[in-house]
Amino acid sequence: MTTDALTSTDLRSAIQTALDTFFDGHSEILEQASPDAGVLTDSLRTLVHGGKRLRPTFAYWGYRSTGNGHSDEIVRVATSLEFLQACALIHDDVMDGSDTRRGNPSVHRQFEALHTSSGWNGDGANFGLGAAILVGDLALSWADTMLCTSGLTDAQLQRAKSVYDTMRAELMAGQYLDLLEQSRGGTTIDQARNVIKYKSAKYTIERPLEMGAAIADAPTTVRTLLSTYGLAIGEAFQLRDDLLGVFGETHVTGKPAGDDLREGKQTILVALTQNLGTESTNELLKKHLGNPALDSATIAVLQDAIQETGAVDAIEQDIARLTETAINAISNENIDPIAGQALTELAISATQRSA
Amino acid sequence: MTTDALTSTDLRSAIQTALDTFFDGHSEILEQASPDAGVLTDSLRTLVHGGKRLRPTFAYWGYRSTGNGHSDEIVRVATSLEFLQACALIHDDVMDGSDTRRGNPSVHRQFEALHTSSGWNGDGANFGLGAAILVGDLALSWADTMLCTSGLTDAQLQRAKSVYDTMRAELMAGQYLDLLEQSRGGTTIDQARNVIKYKSAKYTIERPLEMGAAIADAPTTVRTLLSTYGLAIGEAFQLRDDLLGVFGETHVTGKPAGDDLREGKQTILVALTQNLGTESTNELLKKHLGNPALDSATIAVLQDAIQETGAVDAIEQDIARLTETAINAISNENIDPIAGQALTELAISATQRSA
Repeated sequence: MTTDALTSTDLRSAIQTALDTFFDGHSEILEQASPDAGVLTDSLRTLVHGGKRLRPTFAYWGYRSTGNGHSDEIVRVATSLEFLQACALIHDDVMDGSDTRRGNPSVHRQFEALHTSSGWNGDGANFGLGAAILVGDLALSWADTMLCTSGLTDAQLQRAKSVYDTMRAELMAGQYLDLLEQSRGGTTIDQARNVIKYKSAKYTIERPLEMGAAIADAPTTVRTLLSTYGLAIGEAFQLRDDLLGVFGETHVTGKPAGDDLREGKQTILVALTQNLGTESTNELLKKHLGNPALDSATIAVLQDAIQETGAVDAIEQDIARLTETAINAISNENIDPIAGQALTELAISATQRSA
Repeated sequence: MTTDALTSTDLRSAIQTALDTFFDGHSEILEQASPDAGVLTDSLRTLVHGGKRLRPTFAYWGYRSTGNGHSDEIVRVATSLEFLQACALIHDDVMDGSDTRRGNPSVHRQFEALHTSSGWNGDGANFGLGAAILVGDLALSWADTMLCTSGLTDAQLQRAKSVYDTMRAELMAGQYLDLLEQSRGGTTIDQARNVIKYKSAKYTIERPLEMGAAIADAPTTVRTLLSTYGLAIGEAFQLRDDLLGVFGETHVTGKPAGDDLREGKQTILVALTQNLGTESTNELLKKHLGNPALDSATIAVLQDAIQETGAVDAIEQDIARLTETAINAISNENIDPIAGQALTELAISATQRSA
């Protein structure tokens, strides 16, 4: 066992190398079917080049929480989660009709543009939709391929796979609940919290940590501490995301300011505003929420109205409380101190992104 | 080693039992996220209840080609391919905007209807699309979950997984090439044949057989024979499907008669008709192919025009030749006679479905 520390830059670089190696080894299957199919892997490769690497990072430190050292195998396993996330993003963008992702056109828009510039027959938007569904399917397939060929022992792989299977099914459930809440409208705080739990807390943080810990065959005490940390930071991370979706600047979020208001997202922030706000605040929300053509003046009015209810302060307090709970859990003698330090820094950076 | 014979009814029943057991064991993860998410598994369960079980059947007999007996493990592995196929069908129906599948509304239409009957906000078609993408993603995930938890030894699983990974990537490539051919129009016979090879021959027959043979650790001679059989029957099967898509009755195909003409599918039949036909035949095709509103009188005119070029006879000869090649390959002393017999019957039933 080594106890080497590792900067987040080192880890990001190792993740990128693992991705590059995987693409180099697997793109050929599609190229062989036809050179025309290479565009699927090109599109996926560009997409996974970006991203904050949250899920791989948590899986990695989950593994090291018991004192295990760095290894190429654990980096590969952890990196496989980037493909799962790529699938979620690509298919999410199709469902939401989003135009951009990580500073580029969304995958369906890229293929729509290819259709247009090639002068092909039929509806370009429909071609884009079809191709994006397939790139997402490829990403979902490759998540699993990368996980299973990462070089773990059979016993490690079986333990990892069991957590991964649960995580993947929960992701689909969480995505569906999100879709459902947007359609049903008038979400309650409890419903919004459940969507967060499945779509974000478990998927982004708790399960990746658990997967890493399962590979390390960590004892129950460690797993419980990681789970406490994961659920708390997962919720805090999503609450921060909700705030950024309404108040965040484009240069931080990569999306137009106030985008969640235009989308009419049923977040905890919205549910809390409805609970705390006056009748006129609720009228204002009802009138404008979900209007894709909202102008920046109206967005500013909505931002002020939300702020005045006290919902933002309440959520900031929640974020602070959840972060404290998480850091307390991880600052335990049963957690390897290097991993504990890394997870503490991650707790802070994931929840304190400035607007 | 046993050499028990097994009727196709027995095998279908074993596959259904394996599916039921899997659903009973795995639906809970989604129900736990929310009772609202149970509808995803209900929808998938209904879909996989139907179907011809082609891929599981070929995987099963691929395993038995070396003389291995029946086992529950091989049934479970083989059955996992039904989930892969379910993903392909659900996502295909979204891309094509198909209304029905296996005698029921397609998955996206089911969820659209749920949206409408529940009186939810927003666009019902968009809700249906989102939910269907997620049910397909769940199916793709469960294919892999079922494969990896089927009870194979680690070495068997690794061999199976390697074929499966290739097959899955080829499926995505094949689906994309299909989409591309429909958009580019004016397909050549070679291009249409390549789509068939990847979307159908490899995916439906060759790779499932190869997966079964890999689990059995079959020698190269056996694998080569199975591959010859698989590619030939796969192409013949798809050619039959092309004929049925133009000439098949609804009670055989489960689709409206002449559906491929309305969709404007770029099949080998269409490419061959264009090669063999007169200028006026080609004008006629150009005018009507891909018109979703084609009436039955025009379809009858198109059917006659296609028939008159001799394209149908040529394709019938191709099917007969390919079937003979396949049966010759499989009637070899290196192939277990019980498996050889079953594969011979499958070759005939898959390629001689009556119009």
